[in-house]
Amino acid sequence: MSGTDIDADPGTVYLVGSGPGDPELLTVKAKRLLEASDVILHDKLPGPEIIETLPEDRREDVGKRAGGERTPQSEINERLVELAREGKSVVRLKGGDSFVFGRGGEEAEYLAAHEVPFEVVPAVTSAIAAPAVAGIPVTHRDHASSVSFVTGHEDPTKEESAVDWEALAATGGTIVVLMGVGRLPDYTTALLEAGMAAETPVALVERGTWPGQRVATGTLETIVDARDEADISPPAVTVIGDVAGTRESVVDFLQNDYGATVDETAQSGE
Amino acid sequence: MSGTDIDADPGTVYLVGSGPGDPELLTVKAKRLLEASDVILHDKLPGPEIIETLPEDRREDVGKRAGGERTPQSEINERLVELAREGKSVVRLKGGDSFVFGRGGEEAEYLAAHEVPFEVVPAVTSAIAAPAVAGIPVTHRDHASSVSFVTGHEDPTKEESAVDWEALAATGGTIVVLMGVGRLPDYTTALLEAGMAAETPVALVERGTWPGQRVATGTLETIVDARDEADISPPAVTVIGDVAGTRESVVDFLQNDYGATVDETAQSGE
Ligand SMILES: C[S@@+](CC[C@H](N)C(=O)[O-])C[C@H]1O[C@@H](n2cnc3c(N)ncnc32)[C@H](O)[C@@H]1O
Ligand SMILES: C[S@@+](CC[C@H](N)C(=O)[O-])C[C@H]1O[C@@H](n2cnc3c(N)ncnc32)[C@H](O)[C@@H]1O
Repeated sequence: MSGTDIDADPGTVYLVGSGPGDPELLTVKAKRLLEASDVILHDKLPGPEIIETLPEDRREDVGKRAGGERTPQSEINERLVELAREGKSVVRLKGGDSFVFGRGGEEAEYLAAHEVPFEVVPAVTSAIAAPAVAGIPVTHRDHASSVSFVTGHEDPTKEESAVDWEALAATGGTIVVLMGVGRLPDYTTALLEAGMAAETPVALVERGTWPGQRVATGTLETIVDARDEADISPPAVTVIGDVAGTRESVVDFLQNDYGATVDETAQSGE
Repeated sequence: MSGTDIDADPGTVYLVGSGPGDPELLTVKAKRLLEASDVILHDKLPGPEIIETLPEDRREDVGKRAGGERTPQSEINERLVELAREGKSVVRLKGGDSFVFGRGGEEAEYLAAHEVPFEVVPAVTSAIAAPAVAGIPVTHRDHASSVSFVTGHEDPTKEESAVDWEALAATGGTIVVLMGVGRLPDYTTALLEAGMAAETPVALVERGTWPGQRVATGTLETIVDARDEADISPPAVTVIGDVAGTRESVVDFLQNDYGATVDETAQSGE
């Protein structure tokens, strides 16, 4: 943890994903840049275990401002440019992968528009990893020829909703919803109305790979109750599709031990 | 590179993704397990740079059999069980993430059915990373509220094709096609027929993060010519959607240097 410039270029911004939360799921490159960079801008999503390893004197928490509200993206963008122009090597650290619902694209565009050199450091996304460590493969030769990652924070009943749940249902593939704990009743209803089978397996994976990871399972029809019984809260991903049923057949031999195994009380409807 | 059991449990199979190919995009955990395990089963997809670091005496190439044809999955499954029952710690190394078109789900099921303990080690998938290092974010607040990963090796004109290109087009989100170099003409036609705009940006990223990575860009209408001019061959991903246009606005400041930058001759139609 030297903060030297030897392994991170001065005046360069590194858009780095932290992975889902387990520090061992950082990439080798992310780890190197966290050690070598002059300053690290982060929020809370990388999770407690990774954040506690960040050196106090080289990190800036840009998740929340003093008042408690979220720092506007424009301010973060400006800070990145400012630090780079001071000749600093800067890591912008995001939870999961920066380019999966992580504003990394906007940051890249802003940096390029301001002639700041930047590098992208891809990472393990929670959309794949949280299901995986719970025993759920997002694709499967027998069950799913595609997988879609979608944001769940839009209101599916709103006219201008950018998410077409009917089309997602029609793909026949796995659907993984991010930011989708609160609106679970809305989009499960939308998927049922689109003709998806009520008995389609669904799993919620909360804080995947964090200490105290939790999993609740059910079907399109029962998962809202399962969520409530288990009191699942963000961050969590929702996995919808036959692959979610794989967990049941493998979990007894799955050694990944990120805290609680399945919350049995959440297996409602059985 | 000791092959001791200290950091890998005897009798356990680790389903490990290698990431897209850059050895620095291995996770810390994958690196530890590659060093500590008794035996590593792999094929060619992890790429030349990672494969050359695998110790000769502890690795088995299960990609191709002596005759040159592909090793059947059933044989690989049996070998995993056999090695674990001998008390070995076994790494099953796949390119990208094992659970994204990587047969990891089938391997997990087989291991569980044979009472072999296993662990899943999620990884950086090429479906996100190859576009990312080419300056393409698979989601973007202004352009894409969802991203779908889909296999391109099925014939879209076949009755029983499991992939519904019309539904994928209707999602309005980004589409990333894996194993889709050969059938590019088929599914771009299918997407055009489904009503996707002819000028939708498309990028092909070949050997993402490998030395000599190449990128060809175009539109739904011009990408087949671009592929042919640049002679793009597998492994490559196809990124379809407005996000593919981001590359153009950021590439001048993008520092990731995995070989050739954009193949300008491939920018046909300009
Ligand atoms: C703004 S998005 C960022 C996603 C991130 N860039 C990624 O690739 O994982 C935040 C959402 O990611 C998901 N998420 C992030 N980390 C998670 C984890 N460890 N376990 C489960 N879900 C997680 C949750 O759905 C959360 O609401
Ligand atoms: C059988 S699939 C395995 C995907 C892998 N499990 C993953 O997560 O990246 C093989 C396909 O992955 C894609 N692929 C794998 N590595 C790649 C790379 N380095 N660059 C571009 N595409 C790659 C190609 O589309 C290839 O045909």
